[in-house]
Amino acid sequence: MSSEPQGAPAAPFADCPVPITRPEEILLGHGSGGKLTSQLIERVFLPAFRNPLLEALDDQAIFPLGESRVAFTTDSYVVTPIFFPGGDIGELAVNGTINDLAVGGAAPLFLSLAFILEEGLPIEDLRRIVASARRAAEQAGVRIVTGDTKVVGRGSGDKIFINTSGIGVVAPGHDLSSRRVSAGDAILLSGPIGDHGVAILSCREGLAFEGAIQSDTAALHTLTGAMLAAFPGIHAMRDPTRGGVAATLVEIATRRRLGIEVDERAIPVRDAVRGACEIFGLDPLLVANEGKLIAFVPEEGADRVLGAMRAHPLGREAACIGRVSEDHPGIVLLRTPIGGDRVLDLPFGESLPRIC
Amino acid sequence: MSSEPQGAPAAPFADCPVPITRPEEILLGHGSGGKLTSQLIERVFLPAFRNPLLEALDDQAIFPLGESRVAFTTDSYVVTPIFFPGGDIGELAVNGTINDLAVGGAAPLFLSLAFILEEGLPIEDLRRIVASARRAAEQAGVRIVTGDTKVVGRGSGDKIFINTSGIGVVAPGHDLSSRRVSAGDAILLSGPIGDHGVAILSCREGLAFEGAIQSDTAALHTLTGAMLAAFPGIHAMRDPTRGGVAATLVEIATRRRLGIEVDERAIPVRDAVRGACEIFGLDPLLVANEGKLIAFVPEEGADRVLGAMRAHPLGREAACIGRVSEDHPGIVLLRTPIGGDRVLDLPFGESLPRIC
Repeated sequence: MSSEPQGAPAAPFADCPVPITRPEEILLGHGSGGKLTSQLIERVFLPAFRNPLLEALDDQAIFPLGESRVAFTTDSYVVTPIFFPGGDIGELAVNGTINDLAVGGAAPLFLSLAFILEEGLPIEDLRRIVASARRAAEQAGVRIVTGDTKVVGRGSGDKIFINTSGIGVVAPGHDLSSRRVSAGDAILLSGPIGDHGVAILSCREGLAFEGAIQSDTAALHTLTGAMLAAFPGIHAMRDPTRGGVAATLVEIATRRRLGIEVDERAIPVRDAVRGACEIFGLDPLLVANEGKLIAFVPEEGADRVLGAMRAHPLGREAACIGRVSEDHPGIVLLRTPIGGDRVLDLPFGESLPRIC
Repeated sequence: MSSEPQGAPAAPFADCPVPITRPEEILLGHGSGGKLTSQLIERVFLPAFRNPLLEALDDQAIFPLGESRVAFTTDSYVVTPIFFPGGDIGELAVNGTINDLAVGGAAPLFLSLAFILEEGLPIEDLRRIVASARRAAEQAGVRIVTGDTKVVGRGSGDKIFINTSGIGVVAPGHDLSSRRVSAGDAILLSGPIGDHGVAILSCREGLAFEGAIQSDTAALHTLTGAMLAAFPGIHAMRDPTRGGVAATLVEIATRRRLGIEVDERAIPVRDAVRGACEIFGLDPLLVANEGKLIAFVPEEGADRVLGAMRAHPLGREAACIGRVSEDHPGIVLLRTPIGGDRVLDLPFGESLPRIC
């Protein structure tokens, strides 16, 4: 790493004081959505693939193709277990990639579906997953148009991994990117957080409240469509998956060199999720969601967007949770219920591996 | 499988007489490109995702988007070892997806790159692979615009799996699909076969001729461009990867219910590859290629296309290897060097797992 510019201003976490304990190997934490993930992106991927589309680090690339503006995204799903309360890896893979298109302001149109199967996977499990992916695609009105299947030997995979890539089209007048987030923006959250991560974790641990907490996996494109119809000038949207709401806010504050202030009491969390987080020792802000979004909206449009969210089944409990400011650039400040402020930070490594 | 229409005429291998020994589990052979792969596609994937784009079972889907015709493809790469004579998994993943676009007559434009990393992968290996993928993309003039990284624990993956999806544009006047293959078409092969599979296998086995045989991994889009410029009416192209030339020919003969006649002596095979295949007990026709293509060309354009292939560095040893006919539908007949004919068939299961 000696060639790395130390503390380069545009690179979040490059000046992270925590030493990498075994820097020469991939750790589980590199997949966490936390600091190690950011380091890997900053130090390995971005230097290799420098181009404006990739450097935006949005959930999707948007580029012109003929007369259209096309959005393109990819995600691999390695969640374990593959069946969990509220969904399975097939549905998750379809909804997750739809959401990465939707939060770019795109209408999702076409998906690819690529399987890496481990020898020994029951074909009945594969059928269930395929059926679930199909249902999710049908419900969302997107078409699965191309695919691939690879098989690896026992112990070289884990049952099933799915990659879904997606293509959508961005309507004229929509221009969403984390680059547009500005001081004064209202931060809107579409609903209660932490359901997906807690559902997965309680399923893994076999805990009794298992059935009570379900993954929130859902396709958000009709919600984003309603929001953009209400106010086309939304600056940016993100779906807070790995690393939760915290990862989204910290990444944007760091990368945009803006301050973010969030009122913790304004963030909806179901009681069951809050209770489970206490048992597991987790902060709900760090737990993955699969059917929620965060929008950064100029002040003048915030009420209209919030109204549109609350009128949509997937946004009924939407809330304004904070503001972007010019103060304390790079810092997310959380106003706690007891009145004090704390700095919201990301864990260095991994709290919940293979959550999506 | 009781709901499956037995011997349904449009489903190749549905009437395969060989019993599946353990039908309830995924076997390595399901990823071979042979009969088990076809069965999995016919029995699990196609019934779930019936739509005209997917049912064509070409290497890419082609659909209108605005004024453009867009090609979209996906492939996961699980090759082992990840570094091999002539290339590595990064270069292979980029070239392979470029080729899936190119054989659809598309100019490749944008790629996604999604990694599934196993905990413990040396970061230096990841850097090499990323650098190699970047070089391949630069050489081909395509842009890697979006990506994803997941990490799985030790023993839940195998070093690194890569998914690349790709987007290209098909120029007006080009219409390539296996559906257009017709009796009378000349079958053109772009060069000597079997290099990739033999390079991988000799590397795995640590054999002495390892250095002499290199993977043929290459991006074929400038070759396909030259071929289409010479004769835009090419019916179909395929790159014979898993399952080799045999899988491509048998699939098209079976699916299109046409006969194919191939002259074995016309098929170029390097001496070193032929020798290695004898040692391994392999038929070069069944061995994977990563920089070759097969074109189905109406008689009147065959000479022009063959001339364009031979004028291109990646097609210097191109040859016409056979014809499509109306006789013996569904059968690929191979004229052997000693003058007799044999029916070219696919293995049921797996001869070379994880070749790409």
